[in-house]
Amino acid sequence: MDPLSFIGILIGMVAILGGNFLEGGHIGSLLQLTAFMIVAGGTLGAVVLQSPQKDFIRAIKMTPWVFMPPPVRTEEAIYKIIDWSKLARKEGLLGLETIAEVEDDPFTRKGLEMLIDGSEPETIRMIMEVDITTQESSMLAGAKVYEAAGGYAPTIGILGAVMGLIHVMENLSDPSKLGSGIAVAFVATIYGVGGANLFLLPIAAKLKSITQQQVAYYEMVLDGLVSIAEGENPRSIESKLLGYLTD
Amino acid sequence: MDPLSFIGILIGMVAILGGNFLEGGHIGSLLQLTAFMIVAGGTLGAVVLQSPQKDFIRAIKMTPWVFMPPPVRTEEAIYKIIDWSKLARKEGLLGLETIAEVEDDPFTRKGLEMLIDGSEPETIRMIMEVDITTQESSMLAGAKVYEAAGGYAPTIGILGAVMGLIHVMENLSDPSKLGSGIAVAFVATIYGVGGANLFLLPIAAKLKSITQQQVAYYEMVLDGLVSIAEGENPRSIESKLLGYLTD
Amino acid sequence: MDPLSFIGILIGMVAILGGNFLEGGHIGSLLQLTAFMIVAGGTLGAVVLQSPQKDFIRAIKMTPWVFMPPPVRTEEAIYKIIDWSKLARKEGLLGLETIAEVEDDPFTRKGLEMLIDGSEPETIRMIMEVDITTQESSMLAGAKVYEAAGGYAPTIGILGAVMGLIHVMENLSDPSKLGSGIAVAFVATIYGVGGANLFLLPIAAKLKSITQQQVAYYEMVLDGLVSIAEGENPRSIESKLLGYLTD
Amino acid sequence: MDPLSFIGILIGMVAILGGNFLEGGHIGSLLQLTAFMIVAGGTLGAVVLQSPQKDFIRAIKMTPWVFMPPPVRTEEAIYKIIDWSKLARKEGLLGLETIAEVEDDPFTRKGLEMLIDGSEPETIRMIMEVDITTQESSMLAGAKVYEAAGGYAPTIGILGAVMGLIHVMENLSDPSKLGSGIAVAFVATIYGVGGANLFLLPIAAKLKSITQQQVAYYEMVLDGLVSIAEGENPRSIESKLLGYLTD
Amino acid sequence: MDPLSFIGILIGMVAILGGNFLEGGHIGSLLQLTAFMIVAGGTLGAVVLQSPQKDFIRAIKMTPWVFMPPPVRTEEAIYKIIDWSKLARKEGLLGLETIAEVEDDPFTRKGLEMLIDGSEPETIRMIMEVDITTQESSMLAGAKVYEAAGGYAPTIGILGAVMGLIHVMENLSDPSKLGSGIAVAFVATIYGVGGANLFLLPIAAKLKSITQQQVAYYEMVLDGLVSIAEGENPRSIESKLLGYLTD
Repeated sequence: MDPLSFIGILIGMVAILGGNFLEGGHIGSLLQLTAFMIVAGGTLGAVVLQSPQKDFIRAIKMTPWVFMPPPVRTEEAIYKIIDWSKLARKEGLLGLETIAEVEDDPFTRKGLEMLIDGSEPETIRMIMEVDITTQESSMLAGAKVYEAAGGYAPTIGILGAVMGLIHVMENLSDPSKLGSGIAVAFVATIYGVGGANLFLLPIAAKLKSITQQQVAYYEMVLDGLVSIAEGENPRSIESKLLGYLTD
Repeated sequence: MDPLSFIGILIGMVAILGGNFLEGGHIGSLLQLTAFMIVAGGTLGAVVLQSPQKDFIRAIKMTPWVFMPPPVRTEEAIYKIIDWSKLARKEGLLGLETIAEVEDDPFTRKGLEMLIDGSEPETIRMIMEVDITTQESSMLAGAKVYEAAGGYAPTIGILGAVMGLIHVMENLSDPSKLGSGIAVAFVATIYGVGGANLFLLPIAAKLKSITQQQVAYYEMVLDGLVSIAEGENPRSIESKLLGYLTD
Repeated sequence: MDPLSFIGILIGMVAILGGNFLEGGHIGSLLQLTAFMIVAGGTLGAVVLQSPQKDFIRAIKMTPWVFMPPPVRTEEAIYKIIDWSKLARKEGLLGLETIAEVEDDPFTRKGLEMLIDGSEPETIRMIMEVDITTQESSMLAGAKVYEAAGGYAPTIGILGAVMGLIHVMENLSDPSKLGSGIAVAFVATIYGVGGANLFLLPIAAKLKSITQQQVAYYEMVLDGLVSIAEGENPRSIESKLLGYLTD
Repeated sequence: MDPLSFIGILIGMVAILGGNFLEGGHIGSLLQLTAFMIVAGGTLGAVVLQSPQKDFIRAIKMTPWVFMPPPVRTEEAIYKIIDWSKLARKEGLLGLETIAEVEDDPFTRKGLEMLIDGSEPETIRMIMEVDITTQESSMLAGAKVYEAAGGYAPTIGILGAVMGLIHVMENLSDPSKLGSGIAVAFVATIYGVGGANLFLLPIAAKLKSITQQQVAYYEMVLDGLVSIAEGENPRSIESKLLGYLTD
Repeated sequence: MDPLSFIGILIGMVAILGGNFLEGGHIGSLLQLTAFMIVAGGTLGAVVLQSPQKDFIRAIKMTPWVFMPPPVRTEEAIYKIIDWSKLARKEGLLGLETIAEVEDDPFTRKGLEMLIDGSEPETIRMIMEVDITTQESSMLAGAKVYEAAGGYAPTIGILGAVMGLIHVMENLSDPSKLGSGIAVAFVATIYGVGGANLFLLPIAAKLKSITQQQVAYYEMVLDGLVSIAEGENPRSIESKLLGYLTD
């Protein structure tokens, strides 16, 4: 659970809607189906056109992470790996067999199995780095779907506003409707700019941060397992891995 | 076939045109030959001036990929390469000769032939990497033609709008035409912003994604063939290549 | 203490408020709770939504650095390390033991302890570089919170202005209030653009500079300790480390 | 000769001027000496101030390349280099002496002479890479002069428009001139935006593409000559160099 | 002396002021103390807040370089280094002692002294590269102060314009002053956009170019001295160093 995500959305909504209320505006003047349809539809269309199917699906799958990020237990894992290095010292790499069997994380288990098989440290590093790179670029592609949406939304909002203004300009003969017509046109800008800045871009940034944390975690695991494969002593491994911890 | 591309264009068009309709606008007020000529012509002119001929032609040739991307069968190829590595173990590298003869993809065949000729792994890697880099930069140059067009279109649209406004301003004496004159001028903005955000930029992004997938595929093949050349055991090759698969 | 930070804020405030006063504007017309609420709230909401909790907390913790940057005594540290290298020459690496015990900076102490333990130079470099990278990305994440806020604020300011204009447009019937309504709407732009350019972005830039100085300092320490581990002669170490000094 | 450059400029001009004509605008309303002087002079001033003399001269010298790019005969050169590799196999590196004497391109000749002198492959690579890097950064500096001009022009255009609007605003008492005054002011925007997007930025992009082609060509030559120096067999050299060809 | 810098500023000023004169504007309408105070003060405040003290001082010290760049005599230095390499061949590295004593440039002298001391080539390279990197980042930090100012100025100019417009809007009751009020407000935009595009950004770009030239010069010297340390023959050194010359 990431409470900041809920709080952030709440603060943003209260600020905008509360500000509108204090200015004496009706909430109704910010609600407009047509403007919403143009901005949401145009942005969605652009994003769907540009995204390969699997990136689009991944973006959808990653969305709950904004509120429920996958847990990254770096500290816990560091102490597990230090224990494994001691075990490997005492009983040899084969001593890790029972541990590999019960390991949940597929990435870590794959590394442990190569360790037990006696693969070269360099081989383990190369194979695991391919995994990390593939994972990272796949997760970043998901985050970039939101980033792209956040880039399109404000311009589509302006497009919607210009469309509204064209409509207003064509009906100048009735000046009494001028003001409300322009007001309606401007709502598209609100949706585009607000949608991008209060939701889409922050979500993209959070998904990128989550990706970075995951990658840093996997690199720590990789570094630890390769150190075990190289027969480094547990104390030196501890020294190194603790460097991955931020205060 | 990439259904998302069709769906994306459809959603975008429905949103914009449907929104215009719901606002009570006539479709006719969004159709203007002059504005289209300025925006499309100006953008095309800029792109044609800036592109080397072969990049421009490549962009045209790559356009159908938006709807029909070249197939990338990574999983299938991984299992083929694992089979080859087993065959090479059993019968030696010369055992791959019949496979090279029937291989369709010229890049993979070139790699197989070097393998059979007994080239050094390092030589194979260097030669194949030149191929990949050349391919990649050529494909990216094609995608960048669309990206450049997507960059020019909105500013040319503004240029068209300013030209229209100049025309309006010079004829202020007849205020009854003021509104419709401004409306006409704004249509150039719609074409520029809409064309860039609903078509050109998403197409550029999709072509870039396709390029990345192709390059990742070729790098997997390169990694596999070099591993065979280095005599790695099939199980380790399998471990490595499966890392290229995204879920 | 960094006097430039106080002076910078002072110059900016005097320029803006003094300019407003000279133009004959009342300070009151720049003070508006609603506009402030929209811009500050919207920006805060976006930043809180996008930041992982520990980056957000780090940004808050780093804020006092704008006025009180952590001291970076590069020159002093260079001469200390040169002394250590002479001591290590005379008494061996174990001679550094008493020095490690009294060293305040945890990063330097960790390096000294590995030196005394007789770790390989390459091991020391790798372990200490993990520390530096972790520190750097954590500090940059803090600075980026301000950078993100500086990116959101002007667009939220425009959003606030558009909301205000919508309100004005809906009440066009009373033209006497038109001007003051627009004036009120524009204040949101002032807050967004001014907040970003006079505070948020400069603060982000200063925090980044501080991060760079810290990282350069740590890299100098790392380079010095590794040189001692490699048994380089003190004169050569002096030559190298003095290169880290800027005039 | 690069026909696309002529065609691109033609399309752009026809689109803009034709569009203006179809809208019923007089060409005269787009021709304004003062606006041209502000935009062209301001942009030129900024570029002259920012460019080191030799970059500015190089930009002028490179300008004809937009229409007459220096020929890049990659395929021809590949077959020449393969021939040289065969000759070197048969007659030794000294056999290349007569070829070096008649080689036109100074870069290739320098490489051949080092080959004949029996320089180490690694030395040849390092020396030739310095040449390529120097050439590349010098050519890019020329292209960036146009890029900078393309960045300044639109903002100088806006500056000209604002200056014109100030003039209009100070003479509001005669409303009959309001429209034409604004029209005149807007022409500066047309010059700035049009000059940047129809000429300066596309020219910068073309010069960059030409630079990249040249660099890719030189890298192919470097790769070929180093391979000969390393005594690689002609067939393997052919395999490698053909990878530099794009279809 | 760099005549282009004077000429660039002259062209820019003549274009803007001459354009204003030809349009029939009074120079007085472009001179406004309040607008200047807002834009200059706001920009200065932002830059002072964001810059570490030593970067700010360095930016001030580097400013004269725009008109009087430090001389970079690459060709002269190349021939000096070739002479040194011949001398070192004839008389050994100690033969360079008298040369080191009279060398003016501290960087080159430091390199020569290490050469004479018999330091390893790799050590010389590492030590001198630390110097170059430190110098480069310190000079770039100075250039970035101007770049930052060029980024803030236009937005502060808009802020000043909006403040002026607010003032105008609050006094709509007297429409006769409307035009001149808006005119005054727009002057802040002129200062911000003009100051950034005609002075600050071009100066930043020139200082960056000067930095690059200096760094390229130092890298040439480093390359030459390391080659002497490695005992390369003078002819090969000449070949390599001449590659650093641009035509």
